[in-house]
Amino acid sequence: MSESYGSLPPAPGAPPAVGELTLEEKAALVSGSDFWHTTPVERLGIPAIMVSDGPHGLRTQLSEADHVGLTGSVPATCFPPAAGIASSWNTTLIETVGRALGTEARRWGVSVVLGPGVNIKRSPLCGRNFEYYSEDPFLAGRLGAALVRGVQSQGVGTSVKHFAANNQEDDRLRVSAEVDERTLREIYLPAFEHIVRTEQPWTVMCAYNKVNGTYASEHHWLLTTVLREEWGFTGLVVSDWGAVRDRVRALAAGLDLEMPPNLELSPASVVAAVRDGRLAESVLDGAVARVLTLVDRSTSAGYANGEPVTFDENEHHRVAQLAALESAVLLKNERGALPLRTESGATVAVVGELARTPRFQGGGSSEVNPTRVDVPVEELRDRLGPDAEVVFAAGYDLAGDAAGEERLRAEAVRVARTAARVVVFLGLPAAEESEGFDRTHLDLPAGQLALLAALREATDQPLIVVLSNGSAVRTSTWDGEADAILESWLSGQAAGGAVADLLTGRANPSGKLAETIPVRLEDNSSYLNFPGDSGVVRYGEGVFVGYRAHDRASQEVSYPFGHGLSYTTFDLGDLTVRTAGSVAGDDLAVEVSVTVTNTGPLTGAEVVQVYVRDTECSVARPVQELKGFAKVALEPGESRTATVTLDRRAFAYWSIRHHDWVVEAGDFEIAVGTSSRDLRAAATIRLDAPSLALPLAGDSTLAEWLADPQGSELLQGLDLPILLDPGLVRVVGTMPMSTLASFPGLGLDHATLADLVSRLDRAAG
Amino acid sequence: MSESYGSLPPAPGAPPAVGELTLEEKAALVSGSDFWHTTPVERLGIPAIMVSDGPHGLRTQLSEADHVGLTGSVPATCFPPAAGIASSWNTTLIETVGRALGTEARRWGVSVVLGPGVNIKRSPLCGRNFEYYSEDPFLAGRLGAALVRGVQSQGVGTSVKHFAANNQEDDRLRVSAEVDERTLREIYLPAFEHIVRTEQPWTVMCAYNKVNGTYASEHHWLLTTVLREEWGFTGLVVSDWGAVRDRVRALAAGLDLEMPPNLELSPASVVAAVRDGRLAESVLDGAVARVLTLVDRSTSAGYANGEPVTFDENEHHRVAQLAALESAVLLKNERGALPLRTESGATVAVVGELARTPRFQGGGSSEVNPTRVDVPVEELRDRLGPDAEVVFAAGYDLAGDAAGEERLRAEAVRVARTAARVVVFLGLPAAEESEGFDRTHLDLPAGQLALLAALREATDQPLIVVLSNGSAVRTSTWDGEADAILESWLSGQAAGGAVADLLTGRANPSGKLAETIPVRLEDNSSYLNFPGDSGVVRYGEGVFVGYRAHDRASQEVSYPFGHGLSYTTFDLGDLTVRTAGSVAGDDLAVEVSVTVTNTGPLTGAEVVQVYVRDTECSVARPVQELKGFAKVALEPGESRTATVTLDRRAFAYWSIRHHDWVVEAGDFEIAVGTSSRDLRAAATIRLDAPSLALPLAGDSTLAEWLADPQGSELLQGLDLPILLDPGLVRVVGTMPMSTLASFPGLGLDHATLADLVSRLDRAAG
Repeated sequence: MSESYGSLPPAPGAPPAVGELTLEEKAALVSGSDFWHTTPVERLGIPAIMVSDGPHGLRTQLSEADHVGLTGSVPATCFPPAAGIASSWNTTLIETVGRALGTEARRWGVSVVLGPGVNIKRSPLCGRNFEYYSEDPFLAGRLGAALVRGVQSQGVGTSVKHFAANNQEDDRLRVSAEVDERTLREIYLPAFEHIVRTEQPWTVMCAYNKVNGTYASEHHWLLTTVLREEWGFTGLVVSDWGAVRDRVRALAAGLDLEMPPNLELSPASVVAAVRDGRLAESVLDGAVARVLTLVDRSTSAGYANGEPVTFDENEHHRVAQLAALESAVLLKNERGALPLRTESGATVAVVGELARTPRFQGGGSSEVNPTRVDVPVEELRDRLGPDAEVVFAAGYDLAGDAAGEERLRAEAVRVARTAARVVVFLGLPAAEESEGFDRTHLDLPAGQLALLAALREATDQPLIVVLSNGSAVRTSTWDGEADAILESWLSGQAAGGAVADLLTGRANPSGKLAETIPVRLEDNSSYLNFPGDSGVVRYGEGVFVGYRAHDRASQEVSYPFGHGLSYTTFDLGDLTVRTAGSVAGDDLAVEVSVTVTNTGPLTGAEVVQVYVRDTECSVARPVQELKGFAKVALEPGESRTATVTLDRRAFAYWSIRHHDWVVEAGDFEIAVGTSSRDLRAAATIRLDAPSLALPLAGDSTLAEWLADPQGSELLQGLDLPILLDPGLVRVVGTMPMSTLASFPGLGLDHATLADLVSRLDRAAG
Repeated sequence: MSESYGSLPPAPGAPPAVGELTLEEKAALVSGSDFWHTTPVERLGIPAIMVSDGPHGLRTQLSEADHVGLTGSVPATCFPPAAGIASSWNTTLIETVGRALGTEARRWGVSVVLGPGVNIKRSPLCGRNFEYYSEDPFLAGRLGAALVRGVQSQGVGTSVKHFAANNQEDDRLRVSAEVDERTLREIYLPAFEHIVRTEQPWTVMCAYNKVNGTYASEHHWLLTTVLREEWGFTGLVVSDWGAVRDRVRALAAGLDLEMPPNLELSPASVVAAVRDGRLAESVLDGAVARVLTLVDRSTSAGYANGEPVTFDENEHHRVAQLAALESAVLLKNERGALPLRTESGATVAVVGELARTPRFQGGGSSEVNPTRVDVPVEELRDRLGPDAEVVFAAGYDLAGDAAGEERLRAEAVRVARTAARVVVFLGLPAAEESEGFDRTHLDLPAGQLALLAALREATDQPLIVVLSNGSAVRTSTWDGEADAILESWLSGQAAGGAVADLLTGRANPSGKLAETIPVRLEDNSSYLNFPGDSGVVRYGEGVFVGYRAHDRASQEVSYPFGHGLSYTTFDLGDLTVRTAGSVAGDDLAVEVSVTVTNTGPLTGAEVVQVYVRDTECSVARPVQELKGFAKVALEPGESRTATVTLDRRAFAYWSIRHHDWVVEAGDFEIAVGTSSRDLRAAATIRLDAPSLALPLAGDSTLAEWLADPQGSELLQGLDLPILLDPGLVRVVGTMPMSTLASFPGLGLDHATLADLVSRLDRAAG
């Protein structure tokens, strides 16, 4: 990487004095001045700073026009969107992309890049899934942290979004996500939590939706109790663009900066609320201080003052291509279909409009104006060289015009008949997948599926499908027609070259699925509750999201979470697990090591995945959860040891009884594998942990008393007749002792029960 | 039926004067005096009345001993439990059983029979499912109403239970059923609602559990707002035995009578609460009045004063057998396996301990001390007569002792090898299914499955499985081994004879499944949330319970809701649908008629099932819902027309926006069939209904404005630049107009928006 990545900026200076500002200036500061700028205060020399859309590339609009519109932004490198780069499972790579992104931000004077998006892919239908990393919060948190680290290393802020439970586009500005606290804690918050705790992002962006009836922008528990008080967030909370409904309530909840500003209403309402005492001025002052700190951080970093920064577009394109190489997942590879090896003079048919008109990013606020775009068919022609003839046929059109497609299909079949290999580019047209709306099914367009069937009918030669889509598409209906499937996701402006390198074996696929590809949409656990209606979406599946649900329900999937093939093979062995520290001491460190060997003929990389399973638990938990991973690059024959350390949290669940993360003592299985369903080795460890049992009381059931050694002993001393009948005990075992004490004639009265409880309490000391 | 069913009792007299009672007497009256009796007030001549467990037969304990215990009750006819008789889909039959039950109650001086149980089978695992009718609230309501009608026709009260959302045994006295209102209204309450509205049961019994955090016994919304104020219930609310936690709170919520009495605490707490003003005496007086009315109803009916009532045990056994005949469902019948037709001298092997030791009812509070018990193998021997040799082998033991079972299995195989037909009785031992605990899987015991596999291996002769179980067992793992499956459920003391009649063709099966038999437990929509933990069970599947979920998720099932074969065949034709009245007028009457013809060689009965489907709706609804049924008995070649009338409610859903039952105008498909997945004819009707659209407002989205003709016209008049870009409109279409008005530079300000809204309001008048 070149010097353009620069060094770390100076640490933020002391925040300017809030006390020098008038109430009106303060009210103006907590809203922006226009779509992309904070409010300057010229008399105090407080500048405006600029923020910019785009976690995978800048969407910096310099003109005032068309701000809600999505055009007219400056040229910027379009790196792979999150859905693509997540498949890399490569934090170093993502950090590199982040550094490049930070440099481009500096070039244009952008102080905060509005990303990454770390929302969980609750349903593959969510139209904005391409902007999110994973169905797994651990993975999303680690990958998001890497991007934040990279961007912020350049003195440019990030905005981790959308906080929280923004998992659909449908009615996203009004819908209430009805989700219980354990599910929030275990699934929807941990990615944010990890990034906040480890990277202190300059800003966090609140979501549009309501969470359990309260707008995220007005959610004090989310924005203050959890984010600041529990996680120690010291940065600024900015609204998603238009997420503020009531500026005063939002301030009181902890939302510092409203963007874009509701200039007509917000500043005046804040002034009025402070004047009439509805809003404590100290609350406003806190928000103002955070805005000033953000401005100060940017200006301290220098470039926002106009210091010239440059970046090398070619170099950044190369970074984008490296990222795209690792974003692709080889789902399937049979009959030696890949890499393409053609005899001299052979014909390779490249079919599909998407090979000529690639789709490499999603629509909406993240849409980048790329510096250039690699076209797959051209790149493939380049890689295959003069010896192979590449013949292209569109095969379908992206508008899905049935009449026109019949002719295109016939032409493609003609081309395929004479080819030694057929590479078909399929995927979702932009009109089917975007910010702003959700899909309603998982299928590829009918014309594309008809094309594939016709090609399969026409040739016995290997048929290779390359997919471009921002979230899972159904493969089960046509999987048998393809000999190989390369899922390239949407992976940025350099995707075309990367795909050509992967197809031809110049590069070896190493991507792993960050989301399950289900057999049917109906198998997704949110299916019965997505996207909700009447302003409400019930998260009825609780913590069982993605593979957590498929595993729990023992469902077949087309391709499991973590899956991805390589042109070489890997062996995992010598699993060792060493435990240090303790749950009680909060210094538990379980070191998991495994030796990875490249047993095949090519250089390649494997992702070692570590899953933890609580073998027995008093609450319903996922069968297994990803708690660590390591990507290991190896030459043929090379071995390396991958080590992952698990802390207490890796074994914990959120207890609604204890209102805390708890570890239940007992056996935990630690499995390592190359996908969630290709586990190669496992070890079981036993963890001691403080007892979670509630002390026996009157409301404890007969069964609970009998299961407790002391309780049982005390009960047996009473000679209750019902205890003599085990069948009866089984029927009334769920009855609390206080209920049994209220029954006439059972031989247990309330005073006796109270005495038993107090004897137990005394014994417990 | 004989005269023992008697005529209607006199109408209830005027309630005694509450004003004559002291506060202490009133406090005593709202609790019972012992396990089964209300409190008498001798000085005023107010007697105690007796209540008794057992919706399918009396569990009347005359002695004082062992009340929580389940033994020592008087002999009573054990009719089929609800899970069995529900399969009859025959309200006339159930009413007949109710009359017989009422007569037996009179015989023993029982004033109130504690049933029926109409809770919904949310999960097949619920240990008490055998006491409940169905996974469908319409069916449960109609069948429960028939039982109430029958019992109450004898001057004996009923107690419709357990109100509400008591759908599991696990932690049933503490767990909170977290269930949204629409789901309560559409799934868990309608059976209660129908019975209350049509039959005015003398009592309703509140459930043990909490509903959304509040004990059912203290749930004012359930016990008063919904039950009394909305549905017009005039009877008494009694606690489930031990369901009261706080007597004062329960009274305030609408719980009239505590059973059994918490004599130590309750009366004193009520007196104290009235004295110190925490409880209005008028609330207590209302409860007392309802207790006195109940006592008066019983004494008016005469028998409670000791008037002798007799019943004919033989006659009631015959009623039990008629009921058992219709309780069995012929799931499968291949290779002409049934009815059993054996050549003279042939051997019929009857295998399975359950053929000798039948299980015909469930364990717990409903367990009846039967007047006699038919033993299947003996009944079968009797029916087959001297020409066929019946050879019995136990094949397994009910304790599941693996070592012993190996020998039993070998013996059974030996017997089966020489037999022309093998009838295997399989099912759940009592230890695996009872009130008080839930199952954890759906499988038959391993020893039984091993037996079946061994028998299939041993013989090519037809193999017939007879099942005895109180809720669905998994068949998919062994279905292929059986040529015929007769699901006899638990169907009372006469089940043995009924099964013999059905197997031999003396009677023709006509039962239909009231619950789905899923392929796998995991396919049940409550699977991820059953039975919950930490004191909470989330009803995450919402209204998608039973077939409503399987249909919505397009899941295969082993045997669908409504399924059941016959030895004859039926044709359904000439579907006619006539609509009268209107949704708006609340007098909608859609008359659905279909001609049923017995096209086979035997007398039999078919259940015509009417399902309604809202073809397009703004909220997520089940694909289809049962809204009518009619059982039609036909001689061979005979035709009859079945007619079902659907009212407004048959087309309605509970709207959380309108907080009411609403019908959305449009097309509804009305399908008739012989199961939920064997629909023979369908017709579509279009219903007019008042618009449900909310008036356009500032919080309405851009898309909603554009979809409204007036709103769209007004917007177009503004010449907003964003409206020129359809792709952009799609992305920002979910934004409320007020959000767009808050964006700077879009050309829409808040005043303009307010003006548009007021113009629309004026236009709407």
